[in-house]
Amino acid sequence: MDPIIAIATTILTQIQQPTLAFLIGGMVLAALGSRLEVPEPVYKLIVLLLLLKVGMGAGIAVRKADLLALAVPALGAALAGILIVLLGRLVLLRQPGVSEMDGMATAGLFGAVSASTLAAGMAMLDGAGMAYEGFIGALYPFMDIAALLTAILLARMSAERKAARSVMPQGGVATMTMGQGGGTGHGDIMREILVDTLKSPAISALLLGLGLGLLARPEAVYASFYEPLFRGLLSLLMLVMGMEAWSRLADLRKVAHVYVIYGLAAPLVHGLIGFGIGLAAHHLTGFSAGGAVLMAVMAASSSDISGPPTLRAALPEANPSAYVGTSTGLGTPVAILSIPLWIALAEALIGA
Amino acid sequence: MDPIIAIATTILTQIQQPTLAFLIGGMVLAALGSRLEVPEPVYKLIVLLLLLKVGMGAGIAVRKADLLALAVPALGAALAGILIVLLGRLVLLRQPGVSEMDGMATAGLFGAVSASTLAAGMAMLDGAGMAYEGFIGALYPFMDIAALLTAILLARMSAERKAARSVMPQGGVATMTMGQGGGTGHGDIMREILVDTLKSPAISALLLGLGLGLLARPEAVYASFYEPLFRGLLSLLMLVMGMEAWSRLADLRKVAHVYVIYGLAAPLVHGLIGFGIGLAAHHLTGFSAGGAVLMAVMAASSSDISGPPTLRAALPEANPSAYVGTSTGLGTPVAILSIPLWIALAEALIGA
Amino acid sequence: MDPIIAIATTILTQIQQPTLAFLIGGMVLAALGSRLEVPEPVYKLIVLLLLLKVGMGAGIAVRKADLLALAVPALGAALAGILIVLLGRLVLLRQPGVSEMDGMATAGLFGAVSASTLAAGMAMLDGAGMAYEGFIGALYPFMDIAALLTAILLARMSAERKAARSVMPQGGVATMTMGQGGGTGHGDIMREILVDTLKSPAISALLLGLGLGLLARPEAVYASFYEPLFRGLLSLLMLVMGMEAWSRLADLRKVAHVYVIYGLAAPLVHGLIGFGIGLAAHHLTGFSAGGAVLMAVMAASSSDISGPPTLRAALPEANPSAYVGTSTGLGTPVAILSIPLWIALAEALIGA
Repeated sequence: MDPIIAIATTILTQIQQPTLAFLIGGMVLAALGSRLEVPEPVYKLIVLLLLLKVGMGAGIAVRKADLLALAVPALGAALAGILIVLLGRLVLLRQPGVSEMDGMATAGLFGAVSASTLAAGMAMLDGAGMAYEGFIGALYPFMDIAALLTAILLARMSAERKAARSVMPQGGVATMTMGQGGGTGHGDIMREILVDTLKSPAISALLLGLGLGLLARPEAVYASFYEPLFRGLLSLLMLVMGMEAWSRLADLRKVAHVYVIYGLAAPLVHGLIGFGIGLAAHHLTGFSAGGAVLMAVMAASSSDISGPPTLRAALPEANPSAYVGTSTGLGTPVAILSIPLWIALAEALIGA
Repeated sequence: MDPIIAIATTILTQIQQPTLAFLIGGMVLAALGSRLEVPEPVYKLIVLLLLLKVGMGAGIAVRKADLLALAVPALGAALAGILIVLLGRLVLLRQPGVSEMDGMATAGLFGAVSASTLAAGMAMLDGAGMAYEGFIGALYPFMDIAALLTAILLARMSAERKAARSVMPQGGVATMTMGQGGGTGHGDIMREILVDTLKSPAISALLLGLGLGLLARPEAVYASFYEPLFRGLLSLLMLVMGMEAWSRLADLRKVAHVYVIYGLAAPLVHGLIGFGIGLAAHHLTGFSAGGAVLMAVMAASSSDISGPPTLRAALPEANPSAYVGTSTGLGTPVAILSIPLWIALAEALIGA
Repeated sequence: MDPIIAIATTILTQIQQPTLAFLIGGMVLAALGSRLEVPEPVYKLIVLLLLLKVGMGAGIAVRKADLLALAVPALGAALAGILIVLLGRLVLLRQPGVSEMDGMATAGLFGAVSASTLAAGMAMLDGAGMAYEGFIGALYPFMDIAALLTAILLARMSAERKAARSVMPQGGVATMTMGQGGGTGHGDIMREILVDTLKSPAISALLLGLGLGLLARPEAVYASFYEPLFRGLLSLLMLVMGMEAWSRLADLRKVAHVYVIYGLAAPLVHGLIGFGIGLAAHHLTGFSAGGAVLMAVMAASSSDISGPPTLRAALPEANPSAYVGTSTGLGTPVAILSIPLWIALAEALIGA
């Protein structure tokens, strides 16, 4: 019974964290019919600041890393992010009743990375005396952005296909909706969706932040403004998402079990994928045992920071009670509890 | 002449404090016809953040207090808040020319508590070597919220009655305005107003913050975001209220003397009420002499923090030049100057 | 070749500073067709906070200065600001293709002061062991506000004249646009424009901040809120201005050489004006050699802080790629590099 108590305690602690507490608070307000609202311009400001910050932090971390040593693990991290999303699509969209948007947003969030879970992993490795590379923090944007972009692209492509199919009977001019004449192929549509995604406010802000972090020297304004405001703005975003989630909770009733099972099992499967990639990097380039553990921790984690604002802005049709609920409520506790497992695996297969 | 100079100095210092200085600045801008404006969505954000912060701070304080020892003084504090508002209603609304909304808002603000006046009281007790309970900070939300809710409820009930009366002659369907058919009694209307008040954005945000502070662990985001932004956002709110107050200052010309007398006398009367309740708690539960002094200080003080945003959002018809001017310009200086009086009373009646 | 490398390095460092990096980032986003936007209410909030902060900081600095010793140098500083703008008007508006609004905004920005260039000057004087008055920081608002007000007044007066001329043929009722009957003279129109400028949101906020800094005690809220938020809000403003600048960059193609020459030469000419005024103050009142150097540094510098938000709000027709580009991209590096020149001049003409 001990592990169940441990899991219950971790879930309770997780619920009391501001992220989930504000989400639940927003749901309670909506349930009670409160007239509280966060005005649209304020919401846009919050998303802009959050994504600029996430991008800038990632850009600064990559700029300060040793790019040569970073190359192979970074490719591996991006690969892990993409694989997790593709796997999530395979598993979740096959379940009857799971909407395409909700499924892809959930897979994207589980592919993206939680910085705090990663920090917990580093702390445990320090405690266990297992060394890891200094550039690990710079790996996280590769997995994070690869997973989010893949999920958004796939979701929007399938929405486009669906729209095309529903328009077809009325004259076959489906591709017109993308602003092109007839006769465009599959590749063209995909390129258009990619360009359109990159121009969306959320991804633009994320990439702008990344570029500024990489090429400029925004450290001072990052430390004095974006970093201190971050947690607070995130709490407001969670409030908005909670209010919205409540009004759409009924949609999930029939498929709740799918998300519960996914939230509990996915972190373990994803961690194995990450660990496998870390192991391959170990044999290829001498990537450390601790590095492989942290690759597993990143893959097992699901994003509580970069993911929700990006997905909320880029896939507004997706239901936050599905993806944020599954990820923050179940995925994150399981990911944290599974860290010792990856350390044990590394000790067995690589040696400390 | 010395006390008059002391009062004048305190008033001058008070006017130079950001709270009142921004209020006056807003009035000057409006008087000069400036086109400066604070956009409505920004105003809503400010109120949301301020009230979340006030609620969260109160919730955290109550959560950390010893609830058993807190019970009797907390009831006493709530009682003091309600009594002060009822007394204010009796006194202010009887004056010809004082509008119902302005009178109730002023009474509410004088019933609510100033955290900085309370801090001044604690500092003076420390200086005088008089002990008090550690949970005193957790008493303040009870008096504060009880007073504000009572004032808002009473003001809205009487507005409802007035609206009903003015509709009556045209067919007696007054209660229809509350969305109910004929035949609803007094209690129903009161319940509806209470529910409606709780659903209002201001009270929702205050109660959400309270709930988060009590049940979750928002300390980190509170300290890194809500607390540092607080004074600054309040200064912006004061600017808005000052601009608004100017355009309505003329309404007050005929009744200014009422507010001046109330602002000077009320803190002393309210302090006596608070001291009496503290004395009763002393005899009932051994509440300390210092505790009784601080109960008097809280009752004598009028809110400069939680009150203005709550009242501005919940009673938009009330004129801020009446309630903020009376409270911050007169009530607070008198409350601060009267602290030694309560210490002397406690020494005489309870013993240090 | 050394000085060219030094200039190139300074320009590169300057481009990587958040101010210019966010401006360029905004231009890139606009060039790529991003749908990112900063909502209008948020933009208004940013300008309000920035200008309140600039005004308040200046007011606090003046309040803390010794007003008697300040008088002559302050008059000199204001004179320098006005002379620079008049000179800029003479030079820039004579160039074919330079729009009136762009030319006046650029002249205003070069008349206004960069606090960071001033700080660099103080650091170099400290290094050279050359003494200067403690109140120098309080001189800067005099030059800054005099230059900005002069530029805005002149730009709006000429816009008014142009509008009048274009209306004339249709019946000679030009002055009606200012809300007056026929027969108003030149002085009346100027007074109306002055009053109208003072009532504009930007100048109102600046003057309100100045008044609060001078007369109230906003130090606590200034240090806890306005100061920490400043650089971050400025980065957002630069983003907005960059996006806007891109869409209007084509306007500048034909006159780019004018701005390049002005941006490189003006700081040296302006520094000489400032040094001359400092020298006069030295002979009149014993103003120190270091003070004369810093007067030259202030005059040579162009505003990166107070100027852009003020001009953007007060002269929305002016093209930010002209004035911010010229000032931050060229004027500021030249101003910083020319500091040793003023120190050498002071040593030669005054003696350390």
